[in-house]
Amino acid sequence: MPTRKSQLRALVLCTALLACAQTSAQVGTTPQPSVSMASPAQASYKPEFGTMWTFDAPPIDYWRRTYGFAPDQRWLDKVRLASVRLPNCSASLVSARGLVMTNHHCARACIESTSPSDSNYMETGFAAKSINEEKKCAGLYVDQLQSIENVTKRVRSAITATAPAEQATQRTGVVDQIQSECNQQTRLTCQVVTLYHGGIYSLYRYRRFNDVRLVMAPEGEIAFFGGDPDNFTYPRYDLDVTLLRVYENNQPFNPPDYLRWSRNGAVENELIFIVGNPGSTGRLNTLAEMEFLRDVSYPATLAGYRRFLDIYSELARRDTSAARRYQNAVFNYENSFKAVTGYRTGLLDTLQMARKRAFEREFRARIAADPRLQAEYGGTWDAIAAAQRELATFNPQLRYQGFAGGSFLLTRAAQIVRIPSESAKPDAERLPPYRGTGLNTVRAALTRNVPIDTAFERLALTAQLRAARSELPAGDPFLRVALAGGTPESVAASLVRGTRMGDSIFRASLLAGGATAVAASTDPMIVLARNIDPINRAVTERAAALNAIIAANAEKIGQAIFAAYGTALPPDATFTLRISDGIVKGFPMNGTIAPYKTTFFGLYERSASFDNKFPFRIPPRWAERKNRLELSTPFNFVSTNDLIGGNSGSPMINKNAEIVGLAFDSNIEGVANRFVFTTEVARAVSVHSRGITEALRKVYDANSVADELEGR
Amino acid sequence: MPTRKSQLRALVLCTALLACAQTSAQVGTTPQPSVSMASPAQASYKPEFGTMWTFDAPPIDYWRRTYGFAPDQRWLDKVRLASVRLPNCSASLVSARGLVMTNHHCARACIESTSPSDSNYMETGFAAKSINEEKKCAGLYVDQLQSIENVTKRVRSAITATAPAEQATQRTGVVDQIQSECNQQTRLTCQVVTLYHGGIYSLYRYRRFNDVRLVMAPEGEIAFFGGDPDNFTYPRYDLDVTLLRVYENNQPFNPPDYLRWSRNGAVENELIFIVGNPGSTGRLNTLAEMEFLRDVSYPATLAGYRRFLDIYSELARRDTSAARRYQNAVFNYENSFKAVTGYRTGLLDTLQMARKRAFEREFRARIAADPRLQAEYGGTWDAIAAAQRELATFNPQLRYQGFAGGSFLLTRAAQIVRIPSESAKPDAERLPPYRGTGLNTVRAALTRNVPIDTAFERLALTAQLRAARSELPAGDPFLRVALAGGTPESVAASLVRGTRMGDSIFRASLLAGGATAVAASTDPMIVLARNIDPINRAVTERAAALNAIIAANAEKIGQAIFAAYGTALPPDATFTLRISDGIVKGFPMNGTIAPYKTTFFGLYERSASFDNKFPFRIPPRWAERKNRLELSTPFNFVSTNDLIGGNSGSPMINKNAEIVGLAFDSNIEGVANRFVFTTEVARAVSVHSRGITEALRKVYDANSVADELEGR
Repeated sequence: MPTRKSQLRALVLCTALLACAQTSAQVGTTPQPSVSMASPAQASYKPEFGTMWTFDAPPIDYWRRTYGFAPDQRWLDKVRLASVRLPNCSASLVSARGLVMTNHHCARACIESTSPSDSNYMETGFAAKSINEEKKCAGLYVDQLQSIENVTKRVRSAITATAPAEQATQRTGVVDQIQSECNQQTRLTCQVVTLYHGGIYSLYRYRRFNDVRLVMAPEGEIAFFGGDPDNFTYPRYDLDVTLLRVYENNQPFNPPDYLRWSRNGAVENELIFIVGNPGSTGRLNTLAEMEFLRDVSYPATLAGYRRFLDIYSELARRDTSAARRYQNAVFNYENSFKAVTGYRTGLLDTLQMARKRAFEREFRARIAADPRLQAEYGGTWDAIAAAQRELATFNPQLRYQGFAGGSFLLTRAAQIVRIPSESAKPDAERLPPYRGTGLNTVRAALTRNVPIDTAFERLALTAQLRAARSELPAGDPFLRVALAGGTPESVAASLVRGTRMGDSIFRASLLAGGATAVAASTDPMIVLARNIDPINRAVTERAAALNAIIAANAEKIGQAIFAAYGTALPPDATFTLRISDGIVKGFPMNGTIAPYKTTFFGLYERSASFDNKFPFRIPPRWAERKNRLELSTPFNFVSTNDLIGGNSGSPMINKNAEIVGLAFDSNIEGVANRFVFTTEVARAVSVHSRGITEALRKVYDANSVADELEGR
Repeated sequence: MPTRKSQLRALVLCTALLACAQTSAQVGTTPQPSVSMASPAQASYKPEFGTMWTFDAPPIDYWRRTYGFAPDQRWLDKVRLASVRLPNCSASLVSARGLVMTNHHCARACIESTSPSDSNYMETGFAAKSINEEKKCAGLYVDQLQSIENVTKRVRSAITATAPAEQATQRTGVVDQIQSECNQQTRLTCQVVTLYHGGIYSLYRYRRFNDVRLVMAPEGEIAFFGGDPDNFTYPRYDLDVTLLRVYENNQPFNPPDYLRWSRNGAVENELIFIVGNPGSTGRLNTLAEMEFLRDVSYPATLAGYRRFLDIYSELARRDTSAARRYQNAVFNYENSFKAVTGYRTGLLDTLQMARKRAFEREFRARIAADPRLQAEYGGTWDAIAAAQRELATFNPQLRYQGFAGGSFLLTRAAQIVRIPSESAKPDAERLPPYRGTGLNTVRAALTRNVPIDTAFERLALTAQLRAARSELPAGDPFLRVALAGGTPESVAASLVRGTRMGDSIFRASLLAGGATAVAASTDPMIVLARNIDPINRAVTERAAALNAIIAANAEKIGQAIFAAYGTALPPDATFTLRISDGIVKGFPMNGTIAPYKTTFFGLYERSASFDNKFPFRIPPRWAERKNRLELSTPFNFVSTNDLIGGNSGSPMINKNAEIVGLAFDSNIEGVANRFVFTTEVARAVSVHSRGITEALRKVYDANSVADELEGR
């Protein structure tokens, strides 16, 4: 899961109409110790909801029953304090002198930015020979979770309005207030987190460390060995690790709580825990929401990715140098395609969906059995289903009427057309991208001078118009306006040829001219944007109203689920700290069985079996030092722990809270776990702790770092 | 594909009601050179029928069009003469001094029987240090195909009757006559082969070599590395090879035609051919036959295998020493379960079945377009479909009424009950097992003294009765007779406790007593067998009549297919020599891609990743000599060639007719190719020629053999 993957996952979430916004700002109340929440109803563990437990509701009884293991509060506190968060990943404190372990793909920006001018640590790798050589990562910080406080009552009592829009404003207001009070009182970084889609609001307080330095990073080729093909799969052979160090007052930070290194690392059939910050799951979604994703949203998303991949392959066909230029974009779309295909696979699994259906039946029956709950929540499922049904009726219109299909020129034209009217409105009434600081961000982007890829522009507009023509009904107003009797090819060609939108000076002049300049412009791209603006606005507003209904009802369902099941079911992932139990275990695969671990032999096998071709190339240092390595050393391994994007870099620990590995991916079967958690074949994929130290000592001459990890 | 697998595949074929009998006897006409058959209709290649081409109809045009390769007759003759057949496998002549290469699992009997009394070459491996140490394989022979002659006219003209039973007798008669004439005139081994289910009859003449000696065999653990889990899968790491030598007059035979060793072995994207004797496919089956297999026959077969596996696991649970005793049986059932599941997967693939449906539509339209063909063949599909439908209506009765479910005691009792009446009839009117030499075989088996596994007997009868009770309608006459008011458990227990059928003396006395003794017996197993005999006889005869209709119409369809398409479509496999084209190529798998080859690194990886546990244990010699090996040497590889059981041991050759590998299995996706051939993900799995010589030199100290193979 490279950083790009996390970003794309976030993108995917938005495309898929799931909750994108994450409450995040800062303020305060008096700091409280972590409080364990009691389960309000006697409800038992349901495996399909997974095992992403919060630290204020650890499932001690379930763990004791299942594994005969019941950690005490000291164990939990230590693990919580040693498991830290990066801006979009997870990590852990792993030495007495502040070493932090995360994935290579989580530290990419740091690795690139600390590289010397004449080389790139992404290619060469880096290992500081001494503490003096450690390199500061600009902008990188580490957040350590200090405490959690349930603030649901305070949030609820502040929401007095009945209209969803007003409720949202009140909610934002009280959340901002809580965060800012907390921040002032504690000097901590405070975030109010929405759990159970609004069933609970919790205040998470973090200590932030801003001085983080690069200690060791392997070559990109070994960190992401197998590249896109092996991404999201297992067996795997990746050293996806980077070591950082937290400093305080220019000295290595000595954390009271850190995770020690296990002597053996992960062992088959062992109970282990992943501790990290999973980004987003959809396990509390209703059946109607899942069916909409399965039947409407995801197929459209995948078709869109496919269009872009076709464009890039057409461009690469025309111009071989283009292949290299588009490599990253192609990788990102391939990656997203693989991920969304996997999500959808879970929804297409009739057995899994039957479990979901059975749960929803049981859940609704529980609610119906209590007149008070039935009055409050009984109508929510049908309200969501009705809204989803209506959204499905105009989904092609929503997707095509006005959307630019990746065209930079049309996107900018649409912004120039909208800025005069949007900036004239009160902030709260603007379209979302123009609210708050959004307006200035859009303005700045408009006047920035960037090169225009006209070949891409033409193909992107053509593909978008073709898709629109094939999916929208004949006589659709957007088609009439956009095609105006031409073909997708001719319209795209004449738009790109005729527009001056590629010129930043021209864009700046239109921006300065405001509504008058926009209305008077004869630039074909501006004319098109002006004509489709009202069409797009209507359909966008209609969708927004329906999505508000869905969000409001989803929040009610979150409350209902908490009312009916309490913390027996873990809340959906929200990029907050969770602990998930699992077993180190192979799985049935490809007609045979996948082993619980791989070794360095397998790295050399996979490279040799592809004749050492990209992306299965062994970095030179690994080729030269092969004979130094004990090739049977465990390298990667799998376990049944629950994880998803955001968990990248999470420590895998044993019952003694010792590091046995470093999570970095799931297998392809695990991707389907987004909506229904399973452990038959789905697995978390981690780097084995013994593979890390073996590589540090034998390949990177980093004995001192290995000694520090192993506490020698 | 171990020998046991081939045997089981044959078993599976019979269970599945496909043609089991193979015309095989000997006689003759004047030997003719191979004659190429012209395609009577201009019909083009259809990929779903696969590429198992006969040597008298090589698809030169298709090869030229597809690969730009058109071998001449000399190339084809040489390849044919160098590609030999073992009793149930394929092999090839690979040196000027008569070395024969085949799979380890094809030479198992020889390897076991030549082992010294104090050890077993299956465990230790064997490599003759000199030609004097080569060990004669008792009973093993090698058949070399000399010529093929189309004898369809002669066979057809001998069939003058109209009733299917009489036709069959006439057919057997003329086939026997042709074979015996051929044998007398040529001293060759002659077989009339039925192609296109009766569309063509071809006389195949073989030179038989009866002196075959063991030269080299690796340890079973490396030949079948990965055991049952890895069976039928890829990536793979098996040295499934054995080298034999053909002798003539006690001297190594010097074949004029043999396959030389390629310097590079199989290379990615290269055109290669597999030359061997595929046993049986069902690609010319009608849709109705396939649907019957998919919906009726295979599910029942799989349920039966599952019952046996459950019995063995129950026995192993009760008695840990039993686990070892039942290991072979469990392996065989697991293997068959995997194979039949794979066959059924192909039939469940809606895309593949749609191809089949489209073909049948086209085929029927072709027939319908010609009034003469329509009159002859137009009714065959519906006749088969009607018979299959009727068979489906009483399939549970056919499966349960009288079948012993694996019970030795009940099987023997049924034979004792039947022998008096069957032996009184003319041979042709007997039930099939009692015809010809069958009667004496059954008699001999009855009086042989064998230990009785009463625990197994009880569980097998219980499982069979339980299954019968759950699948047969209430009031079924078999259930009434068999259960007689008891439960499956109580009936099985009292039968096994009360019978004396385990005693060979008792069985012999009943046999000697004939009908009178049987009628008078009060032994509970005999009583049961006597009571279910008429019930079973009725249902068996009803099924036999329907299967005769299916067979007669299937033969017509074979004729029709040949009339409509000629040799543009290869005939179904019949354990006769075929040549199939393909490309060395990886495939999409497990969310990523499988490489076209594996290397020795992968062998050590897979072993280490399972902690060197069975069946992933490395033999001691391979552990000790690891560092001698160049670990990046190609070991196994995959290609798109068409193969099935019987092809085991086939040479894989390049355009120069040089050995590049040795076929030994297909991947799990390839198992589904039995009915519809595909190359998207289905692959043949072979040992790479370079892996063979590397192992001979570095592990087995067999430089002289490696030199002989490499022509040094």
